[in-house]
Amino acid sequence: MRIAQISPLWERVPPFRYGGTELIVKLVTDELVRRGHEVSLFASGDSITTAKLRSVHPQALRLDPKIKEPSIYEQMMLAEVYQQAHHFDIIHSHVGYNCLSYCSFVKTPTVHTMHGIFTPDNEKIFRKFAWQPFISISEAQREPRLGLNYIHTVYNGIDTAVYPFYPEPTQPAYLAFVGRISPEKGPVQAIKIARAVGLPLKMAGKIDVVDKEFYTEQVEPLIDGEQIQYLGEISHEDKVKLLGGASITLFPINWREPFGLVMIESMATGTPVIGMGLGSVSEVIAHGKTGFVCHCLEKMIEVLPDAMKIDRQTCREYVVSRFSVESMTDEYEKAYAMVL
Amino acid sequence: MRIAQISPLWERVPPFRYGGTELIVKLVTDELVRRGHEVSLFASGDSITTAKLRSVHPQALRLDPKIKEPSIYEQMMLAEVYQQAHHFDIIHSHVGYNCLSYCSFVKTPTVHTMHGIFTPDNEKIFRKFAWQPFISISEAQREPRLGLNYIHTVYNGIDTAVYPFYPEPTQPAYLAFVGRISPEKGPVQAIKIARAVGLPLKMAGKIDVVDKEFYTEQVEPLIDGEQIQYLGEISHEDKVKLLGGASITLFPINWREPFGLVMIESMATGTPVIGMGLGSVSEVIAHGKTGFVCHCLEKMIEVLPDAMKIDRQTCREYVVSRFSVESMTDEYEKAYAMVL
Repeated sequence: MRIAQISPLWERVPPFRYGGTELIVKLVTDELVRRGHEVSLFASGDSITTAKLRSVHPQALRLDPKIKEPSIYEQMMLAEVYQQAHHFDIIHSHVGYNCLSYCSFVKTPTVHTMHGIFTPDNEKIFRKFAWQPFISISEAQREPRLGLNYIHTVYNGIDTAVYPFYPEPTQPAYLAFVGRISPEKGPVQAIKIARAVGLPLKMAGKIDVVDKEFYTEQVEPLIDGEQIQYLGEISHEDKVKLLGGASITLFPINWREPFGLVMIESMATGTPVIGMGLGSVSEVIAHGKTGFVCHCLEKMIEVLPDAMKIDRQTCREYVVSRFSVESMTDEYEKAYAMVL
Repeated sequence: MRIAQISPLWERVPPFRYGGTELIVKLVTDELVRRGHEVSLFASGDSITTAKLRSVHPQALRLDPKIKEPSIYEQMMLAEVYQQAHHFDIIHSHVGYNCLSYCSFVKTPTVHTMHGIFTPDNEKIFRKFAWQPFISISEAQREPRLGLNYIHTVYNGIDTAVYPFYPEPTQPAYLAFVGRISPEKGPVQAIKIARAVGLPLKMAGKIDVVDKEFYTEQVEPLIDGEQIQYLGEISHEDKVKLLGGASITLFPINWREPFGLVMIESMATGTPVIGMGLGSVSEVIAHGKTGFVCHCLEKMIEVLPDAMKIDRQTCREYVVSRFSVESMTDEYEKAYAMVL
């Protein structure tokens, strides 16, 4: 099949460090090539892929200080994709609402993976193009009131080969928290849980500019460097070690997470996850088997001893069978077949 | 002829106070309707026009505090215009590069009036669509190195009826400066000229946030409220009175002005203009007849006594014959005929 993949241009494919969307684009694209498809990847020129790379700029826009109007580059890319639509059997967009206004000019269908969240502004353009074929990354991500034509849910997948299995957690035991240090991700809640159960907590993740004040005022005062440690932004290797060595990974979110990649990253290393039952969490954690889905902080504390008894091999196998690149790509191939 | 006019959505058509592009859109649109064309105006929902108004939002985006992502509304508008392109004989865009990525999907031609300036980012998309039919608002605005397919120059026009003629300047004599208080517009140079010739200077114009520091540091200390007066932002009526009552309007710019509406506003009231010969200035002022085009500050000072002797009726007639709504619309009709 001749497939065009459209990635955001802000970050390279794959991303240097953070960038969930660009990581998924990388994995799907290269796996589709491996399966014999003829794939064109529209992405920043420094992207690395086995597909045919098509770029309007040599660098990830985020890394080029000369660029003041990034949306212009996306317009150029989308014009290129859709002007050449007849060369493709299907177009797979990862750029959210940005390509909606182009897809009705061509005969080649576009499928849209919804990586982002809805906002009062973007809801309006989604409603206008509600008939387009959308793919959600969890059932919870869907907003039934918008009436979008969802044709399938495709869970994100990871390359399980780069997440080695840790049969036993490190001793002495500790809890892990990996994610942006922002109110939605619940770092303060993670600290409360760790204090309540008397276990060390190792935290890692970036602090966005908008979250600087939240960090200084609400998180930093609770970090003692002993029981509660913050390791800053860490590499993939350090993240795997941190997650794999943990007894439990905490995911005490305060918002409707659309997917939550860190949950599958943790389970892939064998570490169960205790998550707050918002958004996708109950779809990603197999309650009682690979972790626990709770609805309040007290419950998260209460289930912790049981969670530590969970079989780590089961966690690993669960991710390999349900959240691998292969299973994700199987589902995308099904979605392509549905629209053709 | 069935014509679609596309306006920016940020400001209403016509603009509440400032907004050169939206004012031109208003004048051309209504004049085309008066001439019997079937015109659809794509603009904010609070626009006032005799054409058929088509909107994706009830208000100018600038005035709606709930709007965080204005570009989404422009995407919705452009999708609507181009999906219905077959209902129009011609599409006339005033939104710069934003519609370039759409126009090649339809058979109806688009003509693009270039109201804005070129930037390192937008130059790239203009080059990509260089074959599209462009209209410059002055010869000087063109950038030959970009190789754009300019089909015509159409000077901006004004509704001369709302600029009454002042046969004599007010006594005691004064100089006028109307424009943004920004380095490009040369308010400091205007003050230097006024001081050199010993005439009062009345200045009016808005101060943008980015120019606040420039104003406080370089302009404000020179304003004494007597010889040098700053009147702030003023209404259309006050602007006409200020320009019409002046002996001379100064236009001592420091940048390549693409058109410079205030020059024709001043001449319409009968007041000659002394301008710095950058950008469009030598095309808009009839040197020696309706003002003077100079190349340094000293020359602007030197020609002032001669400029005060210029016949004010000639200034008025010059604008009526070359820079009226009617002459502008004549030229746009010629441009439409060229692409059809």
